[in-house]
Formats: sequence, C-alpha cells, structure tokens
Amino acid sequence: MKEYEYYYSYFENRLKKEKFIHQPSQLYEPIAYTLQLGGKRIRPVLTLMACELFGGNIEDALPQAMAIELFHNFTLIHDDIMDNAPLRRGKASVFKKWNRNIAILSGDTLFAQAYQFVQMADQSILPDVLAIFNQTALEVCEGQQYDLIYENDNDVSVADYTEMIRLKTAVLFGASLKIGALLGGAMRKDAKNLFDFGVNIGIGFQLKDDLLDTFGDENVFGKKTGNDILSNKKTFLFLKAIEKASPAEKKQLINSYTSKDLTENQKIENVKTIFNKLNIYQLTNDEINNFYKWGMKSLKKVNIGDEDKEKLLLVAHKMIDRIK
Amino acid sequence: MKEYEYYYSYFENRLKKEKFIHQPSQLYEPIAYTLQLGGKRIRPVLTLMACELFGGNIEDALPQAMAIELFHNFTLIHDDIMDNAPLRRGKASVFKKWNRNIAILSGDTLFAQAYQFVQMADQSILPDVLAIFNQTALEVCEGQQYDLIYENDNDVSVADYTEMIRLKTAVLFGASLKIGALLGGAMRKDAKNLFDFGVNIGIGFQLKDDLLDTFGDENVFGKKTGNDILSNKKTFLFLKAIEKASPAEKKQLINSYTSKDLTENQKIENVKTIFNKLNIYQLTNDEINNFYKWGMKSLKKVNIGDEDKEKLLLVAHKMIDRIK
Repeated sequence: MKEYEYYYSYFENRLKKEKFIHQPSQLYEPIAYTLQLGGKRIRPVLTLMACELFGGNIEDALPQAMAIELFHNFTLIHDDIMDNAPLRRGKASVFKKWNRNIAILSGDTLFAQAYQFVQMADQSILPDVLAIFNQTALEVCEGQQYDLIYENDNDVSVADYTEMIRLKTAVLFGASLKIGALLGGAMRKDAKNLFDFGVNIGIGFQLKDDLLDTFGDENVFGKKTGNDILSNKKTFLFLKAIEKASPAEKKQLINSYTSKDLTENQKIENVKTIFNKLNIYQLTNDEINNFYKWGMKSLKKVNIGDEDKEKLLLVAHKMIDRIK
Repeated sequence: MKEYEYYYSYFENRLKKEKFIHQPSQLYEPIAYTLQLGGKRIRPVLTLMACELFGGNIEDALPQAMAIELFHNFTLIHDDIMDNAPLRRGKASVFKKWNRNIAILSGDTLFAQAYQFVQMADQSILPDVLAIFNQTALEVCEGQQYDLIYENDNDVSVADYTEMIRLKTAVLFGASLKIGALLGGAMRKDAKNLFDFGVNIGIGFQLKDDLLDTFGDENVFGKKTGNDILSNKKTFLFLKAIEKASPAEKKQLINSYTSKDLTENQKIENVKTIFNKLNIYQLTNDEINNFYKWGMKSLKKVNIGDEDKEKLLLVAHKMIDRIK
C-alpha cells in the first residue's frame, strides 16, 4: 500500500477525465460543478487503499471509488437544500447558485450516476457491493432525518446524537473500506473489522467537523462558522454543555440557542461564551480521542502488516486532525 | 398469460404485506403513505406480465416489479415538490402533508429502497437489470429537467415535447416490460421490441394525461384540472394550438398563458376557449392514436402468441383510454 497522496492523485486525475456533462446541461452542470469543488476525497481513497491492501488492483476498485464519491456528493447537494446552507467548500452551494428544483433533480441524477459506477463491479462481487451500497444509502438518509428531527427536539441525548452521526456520516467511511477490501479479495471478517475501524474514525471525523463549525478558522474550514448554532443543531458540543451546565447555565444556554431576538453574531457569541466556561472544546477533543482509540482496536484485528496499518492510521489522523 | 386484474391483485396484496415503516418513522411514513395512495400499478403489472409471457414465474419477477413501482413513487414525491403540486391521487402530496425537506429525504430513501429490490435479482441477470434500471432512472431525471425548462421557454417544438415525455414517462413503461421479459428468459430482440411497444404506449399515455389535465373530470382524474395551464406547461395541447393558431389567436393564447393579471379560473377558461376553437381535443386524440399504432407495430414483431398480444393490447387500452 502506498501513501494517501498517491491514491488521491490517481483518483483526482481519473475523476477529471470522466465526462459528467450530458444533455440537458442544466441538469448536469451542477453535478460537474459539485464534483470539481474538490475536497480530500477521503472516501474513494479509502476504497482504493483497502482494495490494494488485500492484493487487489486499484484499477478494479476505481468504479466503486467513483460510486462512493458521487453518492457522497449527491448527499451534499440535497443536504445543503435541507440545511439551507449557502456555502459548500467556500463556494455557493448548488441550490444557491442555481435553484432548489435544480438541486433536487441534479442530486437525484447524481445518485443514479453513482449506481452506474456500482454496476461496473465484476458479476461475482456485484450482489455484495450493491447490498452494502444500498444499506449505506438508507442509513445515510436515516441519519440525515435524525439530524433534521433533533433541530427541534429538546430531549436529545449524547447517545442519540452519536447514533445519528454514525448513520449520517460514519457508515459511509466504513462502507468505503469494506467495499474496497472485498474487491481486493479480503476475508469477510477482515472486511468487517475494517468497516468498524472506518465507522469509529468516521464518528471522530464528524465530532471534529462539529468542533470546527463552532471553533474553526473560516479560511481553513472553508465554510462559515457558527452555522450549527444558528440552526439550533444539537451537536456534541451543545449536548455536552447541557450535561455539564448548572441549572442557571443550562437555562442561559437554551435561551441563547432558541432566542429569536438576538442577532446571528450575538447568538453565536453567547453560546461560545458558555461553551468556553464549560470546557467544551477540551471535552469534545477527549471524545474524539475515544473514538480514535476504538477505531485502533478494530484495526489491530485486521490481518494485514503493521506497515499498512500505519498508513491507514495516517489517513485516520488526516481525517480527524484535518491535516492539509 | 392472465388478465390485468390477476397481476394487479397479486402485486397489490404483496405490496401490502411489505413493511415500509422503519425508524425514524418521520422518514418512512411518507413512503408508506405514498405507496398506499393506490393507482393502477400499470408498471409492475407490465413487469409481471412480461415475465410470464416468456415462461418465467411471476414470483421471480416480483422484486423487480416492486423496484419499478417504488422508483415511480419516488419520482412522484420529488416531482410534486418541483411542480408545487398540492394533490396526488386526490390526496395531499407528501410535501404538502409534511414538508419539503421530508419530501426530499423520503424520496431519496424510496429511491434507495427501490435498489434494494433490484438487488434481489438472480446474480446471472443482475448486471442487465441494474443497467436498464440505472439508464431509465437517468432518462426519467432528464425528462423532468426538460419539463421544468420548457415551462419558461417560448421556443419549444412538438418534437422537443415528445422527446421530453418519452424520457420523463414512456421509457419507464418500456423498461418495466423489458426487465420482466429478460427475467422470463426472453431473447434480447423480443425484449427490445416489447420495450419499443411500451415506450410508444407510454407516450400515448402521457398525451392522454395532458388531455385529462385540461379536459378531464376532476372526480375521475383524481387531481385538480388546469394545473398544466397554470404552471405554463408547454403540453402537446398548447404546442399544437400555437402551431394551428392565426397570428391574432397565437398572441391571445400566449397572453393568456403568461398573464399575471388573470385569476386562476379566468386563465384556464381563456386558454380552453382558444383550444376549443382550434379543435385541440380532437387533434390530441389523433396523435394518441398514432402512438398507439406505432406501439402495435412493435408488438407485432414480438415472438409470442396472438392471444397474449391481445392481453397486452388490453393493457395498452387501459393506459390510454383510462378505463377503470
């Protein structure tokens, strides 16, 4: 197995060579736009890596790596409508740049295009790959639904929240590794352990994303911070704060979170002040480290060499620490 | 092959036995709601019929019949958002009954559930079925996009329009037959001819739908009439009227179609008056008959008995004449 950058460049070059614009261009331009917004391509890299890890050829894993990246981008297009998010990777989101209807329909189209790449799997492995892909797609939708529900639910626990991000974000990392591993000829047990590694790291990744949404540098993070606070998201930060807060602080936090009288900046600042008082930044980082450790436990069980495990660990760090 | 009603009842009973509600219920209830709104289940019936037609067992075609019906219902949920349609089969559409975000996400989920049924195909035929399914899904999205574009495009020809409805509506009828035929063991040539039959009948079906949207009885049609006129749809009726109209009538028609000063009822009545003057009802029926005849031509080439062809013709009549 090679370094992250090797797989990243390989994937990026192949993605650039794919023709995504067909007729009607109004439908396909938002797809090409979304796919060229960039990103670290972590999911397809994981698929390619996992395939090679078990002796497979990355060329054979490329269609499935494409399928996963396309699926991920489909969810971004639809999530941005639902979350009313104007920016994606620092640029206008599809529904802002075009309109809501085009974002719905381009998303649907991208979802179908993802399945066109799934379809390229060898017949012997296609049923397995399709089953994982379908299951993951459903779980991602379920996770997004919980995310929307929790916005207006005042009785969300940290466990509820963790299950939500497992579904919405983490299973796709797990599936990326599992599909790659199966394409490479891995035993089911190894594929399953790699899946678990991916899910735990994926949860850590999302917790880090939440941390950056509130405490990140907008120029590095690539999107406006404070968005979770403004949309009343019950993130780990908020739920941990509710857990730690005194009755007075709790009341103050909920008031700030649900206030309609504060300006956007006031709301963000009030909430951050309480978070800081309760040491939420550190507590969130501690939880991220827990998931990192649980991921390591699963990785240890996988029947591959230590050097390869080290390289997967580097990817995990890349995901969680957001090293450029 | 048996009569339509046999396959309809078989499908309806099996659909009722499927469990569509999982957690979170907010995501799955709109799916169960949509699927029990009823309808004639023409597409899955075509799949089951086509399978038996070539000696297959309908039980083996059931998952694909489900996949097609689920896919169709997914498109209805998303189309109703895009078309801002408050009613579906005489009941509130999903986005009206719940909200837009739930309609987007339930639709996505239903799309993924459709693929879970696709996945049940025998491994030997799965690549073919998945390829047809993917291709059809993309074409349906393209058709919907043209439909949205044409709302605000004053340069749409009858040929443009026909191609739009071929993509948006007709190919799914063709695919329903083709997938069923292949599952039943049909030769590729027969499956292709059945596909062409389905596409032509499907275009006729959509022309009839347009006719009923303007001239239908709301109680029989199950949705408010005049919706196409209110949303400025360049239907066959409108395009044929533009073709036939004198310069004065054309101006009058375009003014009525694009007016923002008229009440909804005035707009509908003005447009219908011009349609009646230009004999549009009859001209549309003539075009429907043309597509019916082209469909018959394809059906004749299929290597099945005359009695079976008669039964398929009955379905074609059911689709086009909207016999209850």
